[in-house]
Amino acid sequence: MQPQEIAQKVFNNDRRKIARAISIVEDYNNEGAELLKQIYTKVGKAYRIGITGPPGAGKSTITNQLTKLFLSQGKRIGIIAVDPTSPFTGGALLGDRIRMNEIGHDSDVFIRSMATRGSFGGLSKKAIDAADVLDAAGNDYVIMETVGVGQSELDIVQASDTTIVVLVPESGDSVQAMKAGLMEIADFFVLNKSDRPGADQAIASLQTNLMMRDHDEKSWMPGIIKTIASENKGIIEINNEIERHREFMQRNNLFIPKRELQTKKRIKEIVENTIREKLWSESGEKSLSLSLEKVILGNLSPYHIAEEIIDDFIKKKT
Amino acid sequence: MQPQEIAQKVFNNDRRKIARAISIVEDYNNEGAELLKQIYTKVGKAYRIGITGPPGAGKSTITNQLTKLFLSQGKRIGIIAVDPTSPFTGGALLGDRIRMNEIGHDSDVFIRSMATRGSFGGLSKKAIDAADVLDAAGNDYVIMETVGVGQSELDIVQASDTTIVVLVPESGDSVQAMKAGLMEIADFFVLNKSDRPGADQAIASLQTNLMMRDHDEKSWMPGIIKTIASENKGIIEINNEIERHREFMQRNNLFIPKRELQTKKRIKEIVENTIREKLWSESGEKSLSLSLEKVILGNLSPYHIAEEIIDDFIKKKT
Repeated sequence: MQPQEIAQKVFNNDRRKIARAISIVEDYNNEGAELLKQIYTKVGKAYRIGITGPPGAGKSTITNQLTKLFLSQGKRIGIIAVDPTSPFTGGALLGDRIRMNEIGHDSDVFIRSMATRGSFGGLSKKAIDAADVLDAAGNDYVIMETVGVGQSELDIVQASDTTIVVLVPESGDSVQAMKAGLMEIADFFVLNKSDRPGADQAIASLQTNLMMRDHDEKSWMPGIIKTIASENKGIIEINNEIERHREFMQRNNLFIPKRELQTKKRIKEIVENTIREKLWSESGEKSLSLSLEKVILGNLSPYHIAEEIIDDFIKKKT
Repeated sequence: MQPQEIAQKVFNNDRRKIARAISIVEDYNNEGAELLKQIYTKVGKAYRIGITGPPGAGKSTITNQLTKLFLSQGKRIGIIAVDPTSPFTGGALLGDRIRMNEIGHDSDVFIRSMATRGSFGGLSKKAIDAADVLDAAGNDYVIMETVGVGQSELDIVQASDTTIVVLVPESGDSVQAMKAGLMEIADFFVLNKSDRPGADQAIASLQTNLMMRDHDEKSWMPGIIKTIASENKGIIEINNEIERHREFMQRNNLFIPKRELQTKKRIKEIVENTIREKLWSESGEKSLSLSLEKVILGNLSPYHIAEEIIDDFIKKKT
């Protein structure tokens, strides 16, 4: 089937062809690039929500409950769930995904899981491409959910209109390092499991952090929503905060510069990935292996070899 | 001063010129590439130790104590400490570094801190280049210490001869996601703060994990060393385990394939960074910004723009 035909089926919300289309863009090649060009003509209608946070914060439960709320409003939802995988089993490390089965059988929900392992660098590109497919399929919402460790994961949730960071009272110290990234990308925070001890301190600490930022009365101030997702408490409040953020962005014409930034980042990633693929194709890997001996045995620097490879690459392509 | 002269001063262990050389390789440009080619002729004598683990595990304290042990053996030590930085203050997030002052004034110790923020992608290249400088300066040991979050940080510690993963009894759940990476890269484990509750379970859980791997009587089995670094307990045992690993690798001729793999990875990173820099130079950024409008307004896909940029890049360079 030609990319054009597949794209047409995607636009008609053909579930099997959507799954096929995502697989094609996942093992990105010429077919994938062609398909994405077709797909892109219908991209831009879905509202994209990014959900991230440390492992065990309850991101999947929140995605699940929020999806049920959207369903009750008659909406269609696409979900990209990015899981860290275990190095020993190859399977997902977190069992949360199982809970999603509850919504996974609804014909108005399309869930796609992606594994992080073995796809560093290209991961965010793949996830965002997949979100484009779900957008073009006419979903009202596309939710991208991923654990908040590593730049690649943060890149994914940042490619959304509203980014939610989920924390739990226990997160405190353990997210110290992550906070550096997470604090900046949050459009608002959810404190899940907020009936546990330490919830009030966690909120106070978040508030202090937020107040330390440069801001005036015109700038967006992220809210902090308390939830107990497993009991469906606070989910409507999450939706309200999403709407508050969406209206703020629209009223101040902020979606256009945001999307420009996202698109710029994305084009860069596509260019770099394409060049990387061309570079390290079979023949590239082979000539690299042959050069290695010169470095190991001859004390020739990796920089000499790198120069050779770049020169060869540019010559070969003309 | 010419790269050749600076390199000569580095070989003579001139501390001011070592600092200068690292700064040059940090803001990598033609001068940096030339300097690194010079430096590389004297690289390969230092034994490289990578130390990583979650925030607060005591990596800096262990680095500190281990360095004091090496000093007592008459060795010279170079340290590259990679810190996550706070987005608000721009300074280091963890206060640990202050404790290093104790060894920082010793003339046989050279410490260099690097910040993670704003240098994603290029970080591991910079840190490994800096380690080369410290190696060429004639240090007996080069220690690379970094918090174990993110691929870039893991790349750094993997560029060593022996990689140590530091955990604490509390790490348990919070390192779930990190484990995926940390378990694989450890040549051995240190359980620090091992007088705290949960130490025995933590060790049992590590052992179970290790036993699950494919292994036979010939393969290396990572040890688990209990320490209380703040009281200097277990540091000699860490050194013994480093020696056990070093001897195992030498006896089985495993350092050569390991270095080949490291060098291969490194050449790839240098090539990709160099190309990235050429691509997004001032004029590249400008033409990208001009193309953006076509995507935002005209529904032209990022893939179209990416193709244009790649074609231009290859044409321009001939």
